[in-house]
Amino acid sequence: VQHLLTRKHNPHYLRSVSFDTRLLTLYTDPGAMMSQIDCLIIAIPSAYVKASLQSLTSENLKGKFVLSAVKGILPDENMLLNEYLAHVYDFPLQQYCAVMGPCHAEEVAGEKLSYLTFSGLDEALASQIAAAFSCDYLNSIVNTDVIGVQYAAVLKNIYALGAGIAHGLEYGDNFLSVLIANSADEMAGFLRKVGIQHIEVGVHDSAAPVGKFHRKSPNYAASVYLGDLLVTCYSPFSRNRSFGNMIGKGYSVRSAQLEMNMVAEGYNASRCIYMLNQQIAAEMPIAEAVYRILWENVKPADGMKQIESTLV
Amino acid sequence: VQHLLTRKHNPHYLRSVSFDTRLLTLYTDPGAMMSQIDCLIIAIPSAYVKASLQSLTSENLKGKFVLSAVKGILPDENMLLNEYLAHVYDFPLQQYCAVMGPCHAEEVAGEKLSYLTFSGLDEALASQIAAAFSCDYLNSIVNTDVIGVQYAAVLKNIYALGAGIAHGLEYGDNFLSVLIANSADEMAGFLRKVGIQHIEVGVHDSAAPVGKFHRKSPNYAASVYLGDLLVTCYSPFSRNRSFGNMIGKGYSVRSAQLEMNMVAEGYNASRCIYMLNQQIAAEMPIAEAVYRILWENVKPADGMKQIESTLV
Repeated sequence: VQHLLTRKHNPHYLRSVSFDTRLLTLYTDPGAMMSQIDCLIIAIPSAYVKASLQSLTSENLKGKFVLSAVKGILPDENMLLNEYLAHVYDFPLQQYCAVMGPCHAEEVAGEKLSYLTFSGLDEALASQIAAAFSCDYLNSIVNTDVIGVQYAAVLKNIYALGAGIAHGLEYGDNFLSVLIANSADEMAGFLRKVGIQHIEVGVHDSAAPVGKFHRKSPNYAASVYLGDLLVTCYSPFSRNRSFGNMIGKGYSVRSAQLEMNMVAEGYNASRCIYMLNQQIAAEMPIAEAVYRILWENVKPADGMKQIESTLV
Repeated sequence: VQHLLTRKHNPHYLRSVSFDTRLLTLYTDPGAMMSQIDCLIIAIPSAYVKASLQSLTSENLKGKFVLSAVKGILPDENMLLNEYLAHVYDFPLQQYCAVMGPCHAEEVAGEKLSYLTFSGLDEALASQIAAAFSCDYLNSIVNTDVIGVQYAAVLKNIYALGAGIAHGLEYGDNFLSVLIANSADEMAGFLRKVGIQHIEVGVHDSAAPVGKFHRKSPNYAASVYLGDLLVTCYSPFSRNRSFGNMIGKGYSVRSAQLEMNMVAEGYNASRCIYMLNQQIAAEMPIAEAVYRILWENVKPADGMKQIESTLV
């Protein structure tokens, strides 16, 4: 906070972006700011959410809205943020939205047109929050598949790891496109099964009376599902793809972590999803191969070989 | 032919690949070879098919099988190859298969694992042909959506042009992923409408009696649809993407053609599909924007701007 106030920029990320601090009220304790706000935006890497929210109480959150930009599962609890908030703070899903989509921060900061998807059970709330974010270079989309979009954001990191592993093993672009297309299909299969709320009401049905909306299942080719998967799998700057590439080249998980000085989100996610899928029982040969390579010492070449015959 | 016999390689493409000419019987006149073969594989750019097949007669083709690797629409007739063969030679669709999928030739020649999809109304025939191509580095897939896979191969070039135009206009990776995801969706919408035969019988239904197959609509996330779209849109070597990039940078169609010394397939395809879609009436804002930019002098920036609000 002190650095931001005196130097007007974040010392760690996107350092070239300056902030007008007259427009910011900065707190180090989230509990202290809660009385001042209506809507809490949580944008913290999933592994640090728990510690960062420690000073909050159920009372603090009462009547507030939460917008989550957290892309991952809380690792200790194996929970999405909405599940964690419900569990610890008794926070209702109806007051929760998630903002997801292919939105690399460098490009947003550079004012390159990007698309954000705001998902919530309460479509009116999601629309209201979406409107606050829309501007020249941000188009916003509203959907109600709040559980699905969060899992999509988790799964894409696992598939980017898989794409990285294949690249590291020197599979070519032909294979990579087959792998990523099949990953998109596998993701849709999981989301269809996991969703507790899979009804999209944002598409107007011209046959229905004015004001009524046509109910249909989510469009898994939309940007928040397929778009985000593509940008993550195809970007050479993606941490998950780079991490996978090192694994494919023969690095151990430990040495890849040391070399990159970070943990790729897909590493923990592959285990979370593997465990979750013991109940869901979706067909996930690609995600399972990534899990076995990272967590069960299966050789990358063997793990990848096993899925070759499952691809269509 | 003379060059191939004496120098053992093709002088124009993949020059480093040598052929064992003892295994090849070479003809310059397709009519002359027809009595020697059961299955004619046509692998000619669509613009040259008509001239190359000129010496053939209906009699030549009687009882033969045709396997098409032609990726495009015959420009003068605005027809797929099967339609042209039916029209000119009265050739039945039942004896026709198409081989498609993300299969850049350099990688196949380099023995990098690739996936080919063999599509035919007669699944047994498609399987038989597929088996003849399968080897260590070629996995084959059988499907029966013979019309759909051919249109998918045409459409992907239009969308790669669109991706190139967006890149040339300096849209970023976030936007590109949204555009390509929406292209996949638009393609599926067109294929659903255009298909005269959209029943895939290759998936076994465990609930059905043994030997019976479950009928379902094509899986548009499969490699022959989404995979081929991805490899074409994301490859910086794709001719269509490069051509689009030049258009986005402000080159005219004529000067982009001169500069590249070739016509990108997507250029003609955008017009063919635009005309075809006058009857089909699928929602195709992206393909239509590409058409208008290339054929109706719409400025690339304006054309792209128009589709921004249609993307989800």
